[in-house]
Amino acid sequence: MNEQEKTEKCFHMTPEQFRKHGYEIVDWIAGYYERIESLPVLSRVHPGELRAQLPPNPPLHGEDFQRILRDLESIILPAITHWQSPNFFAFFPANASGPAILGELLSAGLGVQGMLWATSPACTELEIHVLDWLVELLALPRRFTSQGTGGGVIQDSASSACLCALIAARERATRLRSNQQGCSGGLVAYASTEAHSCVEKAVRIAGIGSDNLRRIPVDDRFGMRPDRLALKIREDRSNGCTPFFCCATVGTTSCNGMDPMAEIGRVCGQHKLWLHVDAAMSGTAALCPEFRHIHHGLELADSYAFNPHKWMFTNFDCNCFFVADKTALISALSILPEYLSNTTSASGAVTDYRDWQIPLGRRFRALKLWLVIRHYGVEGLRHHIRRHIELAQQFAAWVEADERFMLAMPPPLNLVCFRHRGGDDDNQALLDALNRSGKLYLSHTRLQGRLTLRLCVGQTYTELPHVRNAWRYIQETARLVA
Amino acid sequence: MNEQEKTEKCFHMTPEQFRKHGYEIVDWIAGYYERIESLPVLSRVHPGELRAQLPPNPPLHGEDFQRILRDLESIILPAITHWQSPNFFAFFPANASGPAILGELLSAGLGVQGMLWATSPACTELEIHVLDWLVELLALPRRFTSQGTGGGVIQDSASSACLCALIAARERATRLRSNQQGCSGGLVAYASTEAHSCVEKAVRIAGIGSDNLRRIPVDDRFGMRPDRLALKIREDRSNGCTPFFCCATVGTTSCNGMDPMAEIGRVCGQHKLWLHVDAAMSGTAALCPEFRHIHHGLELADSYAFNPHKWMFTNFDCNCFFVADKTALISALSILPEYLSNTTSASGAVTDYRDWQIPLGRRFRALKLWLVIRHYGVEGLRHHIRRHIELAQQFAAWVEADERFMLAMPPPLNLVCFRHRGGDDDNQALLDALNRSGKLYLSHTRLQGRLTLRLCVGQTYTELPHVRNAWRYIQETARLVA
Repeated sequence: MNEQEKTEKCFHMTPEQFRKHGYEIVDWIAGYYERIESLPVLSRVHPGELRAQLPPNPPLHGEDFQRILRDLESIILPAITHWQSPNFFAFFPANASGPAILGELLSAGLGVQGMLWATSPACTELEIHVLDWLVELLALPRRFTSQGTGGGVIQDSASSACLCALIAARERATRLRSNQQGCSGGLVAYASTEAHSCVEKAVRIAGIGSDNLRRIPVDDRFGMRPDRLALKIREDRSNGCTPFFCCATVGTTSCNGMDPMAEIGRVCGQHKLWLHVDAAMSGTAALCPEFRHIHHGLELADSYAFNPHKWMFTNFDCNCFFVADKTALISALSILPEYLSNTTSASGAVTDYRDWQIPLGRRFRALKLWLVIRHYGVEGLRHHIRRHIELAQQFAAWVEADERFMLAMPPPLNLVCFRHRGGDDDNQALLDALNRSGKLYLSHTRLQGRLTLRLCVGQTYTELPHVRNAWRYIQETARLVA
Repeated sequence: MNEQEKTEKCFHMTPEQFRKHGYEIVDWIAGYYERIESLPVLSRVHPGELRAQLPPNPPLHGEDFQRILRDLESIILPAITHWQSPNFFAFFPANASGPAILGELLSAGLGVQGMLWATSPACTELEIHVLDWLVELLALPRRFTSQGTGGGVIQDSASSACLCALIAARERATRLRSNQQGCSGGLVAYASTEAHSCVEKAVRIAGIGSDNLRRIPVDDRFGMRPDRLALKIREDRSNGCTPFFCCATVGTTSCNGMDPMAEIGRVCGQHKLWLHVDAAMSGTAALCPEFRHIHHGLELADSYAFNPHKWMFTNFDCNCFFVADKTALISALSILPEYLSNTTSASGAVTDYRDWQIPLGRRFRALKLWLVIRHYGVEGLRHHIRRHIELAQQFAAWVEADERFMLAMPPPLNLVCFRHRGGDDDNQALLDALNRSGKLYLSHTRLQGRLTLRLCVGQTYTELPHVRNAWRYIQETARLVA
C-alpha cells in the first residue's frame, strides 16, 4: 500500500485506537456496575433536557473519542433509567451479565449476517444447537428440538414470536390461502383478558382485527378459564366463524398469572386451533426441576416462546421461539428472490433462518446465549433463579406480616403484586414517592379494578440486602405518604 | 454484605474478570481485523460440520473463559463468512466500524429498554436527535424531522420499516377500521417487478395477500414505469378495488435500479396512495451533495427508510425509518395496557417509541449511530462513500475494456452488474470458482433472464488494491473456466 492509499484510510479507527478505546469502554462498563447502586434508578431528567445539551447539527469533522466519553458521562448517564441496578424491580427485568455483554461485543466485531446458512454457517448452526440445549435445559417437549419436525429460532421479542405464530396459524387455517389472497374475515383468535398486549397487536397487524380477538375471562388467580374458552369457541363456530389461534400465557405481565395449559391444549386440540404459549419471563423458571409444573400441558402446544433477555442473564434482544412443525412456519414466511438463491439452500440440507422471521437480516445472537450458558453452567443459572424466587417469596411474607399491606395474590414465582390497604390514592402516592427517591424502581398494574404495586425480583445482581432495603423503604415511605 | 452473601454471587463474572475478558475480546476483534484478509471470505465448512464439534448437552458446571475463546478460534471462526473482509463484494454490504462496535458494546453494558421515554429518556431522545441529524446529513425533506408532524425511528430492518409503513397506510385507507375489523379484501398495493421481496412479505403478513400486490414493469434501467403504475391504478379502481400503498425503490437489491420518484409521487398523490420509499443501501449516497439526485421527488413520499447498517459503517441492526405524519404511524401501532401507563406518557410531552414499531422492547441503538457520526464527522463519511463509488466506477471501466466481459447496465453508484459474454453456464462456473477460491465473494442475480454477476463496493475497509485484485482474479479465472 502506498502513502496515498494510507492517507485515504485516515478517517477509520485504527486497530491500535480500537484496542485503546475498547479498553476504555470495557473499563467504563465495569466501573458502571461498581457504582450503579449510587445512581437514582429512575432517571430524573425532564422531557427535552438531554436534547438541549446536544449540538443541533452533526459535526463536520470527526471528534476525539475522549469527548464522546465525556458526553457519555455528563449527558447520557443522567438520562438513563438503570435496568441493570439491583434495585430495579419494575415491569419484568431485562437482565444482562458479563458473558452476555461480551457475547454482544463479539457479535458486533464479527458483523455477520445470518439470513442464510451460507452467509455465515456458524450463525445458523450455533443457534440451532443452543436452542436444542434450551429444550433440554427447560425440559421442553422433545418435539421442539431440531431433531424431528420442529425447531427453535431467536426472535427479537415475544411480540414478534407471537406474530410469527399467528401468521403460521392463519396460513394453516386457510390452507395456505391467506398469504396469497389476503384475509377475508371469519377468522377468530383467543387469549385471556390478562394476555400481553402483543397478542392484540399481532391480531391487528395480521389483518384479523381486534374485534375478532376474544378475551376469555380469568379465574381468581388470573389464569384463563378453559370452560369459557370452550364455550366461546362453540359459540363462534355456530355463528359461522373459524376459530384458529389461541395464545396461552405462562406468567402474565400484569401479575404472573398462569393459564392452565393442559385444559386449554385439550380444547384447542379438539377444535384444531393453533396453541401458542407465551412464557416471556417465567419460562426461565423451568431451568429448575421444582418449577417445571408451570409447563404442565406444554406438549399440546404448537409453539412456545420465552425470553432469555428477561430473566436468563442474556442481553436484549433474545427471544427463543420454538415450533412443533417448522414446515408450517416456513411455508408461512418464506419468499425466495433470485439474489438469495444458492446451491446449499436448494439442497435442503440446511436451515435458512430468514424464513423463520419477519425481517430478512439477522445478527449473530446465539453467541451471547452460548457464552451465558457456558459461563454459568446449568447449576449457576439454577442457583440465581432459585435465589430470585426465594427473595420474592421472602418479600411476600414481609408484606403479609404488615397489617397495613396485603398481597393481591400469592406470588407464583418472582413477581409480587401487593398494595397498601389505604386505597388507590395512597398506593399512587406511595409508588410516586418511592420512584422519585431513586432508591428503587417499582411499577404498577390494576387488578380487580384496584391499583396494585408490582415488585419483580430478577435483575442479575439483586440479592437479599436489596430486597430487604426495598421493603424497609416501602414501610418508611408508607408512614409518610399513606 | 456478609461472607455467605458474597459466596452466593460466585457464579457471576466479577468486575475484575469482566475487565480481563473484555480486554481479551477487544484484542481478539482487533486481531481479527488485522488478519481478516488471510481468511477465505466464504466459509468452507459443510452443513453440520460446526454442530458436530459441539457437545450435545449443555454444561452442568460453568466453564473457564479461556475454553470459550479457544472454541471461538477453532470452531466458530472457520464457519464464518467474513462480511467485514474488504474482499466481500456480495449482496449489499453490512459494514461495521470501530466506533459502531464500541457503540454496541456500550449499549449492551447499559442494558436499557427504550420502549417508553420514561424507561430510559436517553434512549429515546438521542434517537430522535440523531435521526434529525440524518435528515440534515442526507438533505431529506424537512417534513421527516421531529420538529413538525413527522419524525424518525430506528427499526431492525428495511423489511420491518416496510411492514410498519404498510400497516399505517392500511389504517389510513380504511379510516382506522382495518386494525379493529380486520382486512376484508379490496385493498391493492404496488411495487415494481424489481422491488425487494420484503414488500411481498409485508403484504402477506398484513393480510392484504400477494394476489393484491401489483408488480409494475420496469424500464431498461430497471426503474418502475410511472405510466404503467397510473394505468394499473386506474384499472384497479374501475374494477372496484382500493389502491392504497406503493413502494418505490432507490437502488433495487438486484441491480441498483432507481424508481423515478417524482413521477411516481405525482401518481400516488393524485390517487391518494401512501408512498413508501425503500433506499436500503443507496440512501447513504445522499451524504454527498453530488449524489442527492437519487432522492429527487422524495418530498412527495409519506415514508422513507435507509439502512446505516448497510453502507454507513454502523453495525446491523440499524434501519432509519422516517414518516411525514407520525400520527398515522402511531395510531396504527399503539396499544396501551395499564402496566405501561405513566404520567409522562400521558402528558403527551414525550415520544414512546414502542408505538412506532412491531415489537414492544427496544435496544439503545442510537448510541452506535451517534458514535459513528461523531467519530467520522460528515467529511469522513463522505470521503469513504465517494471512494466506494469511485472504485465501483473504476471496476466498471475495466469490465468494459475487456472484450470477454460486458456490463449489464451502467452502475448508478457502487454496485456493478456484469457478465462474461459466454452465457449462463460460463458465468455460473466463473462465480463458483471465484467464491470457492476464498479470495473474494461475489453474488449473482438474473437480469433480462440472464445470469449476472454483482460486485458491490461497500465494505468499510475496501480500497483500490482489493478491487484491483478482484478484477485481476476474475480475469484469470475466466481464462480457466469460461
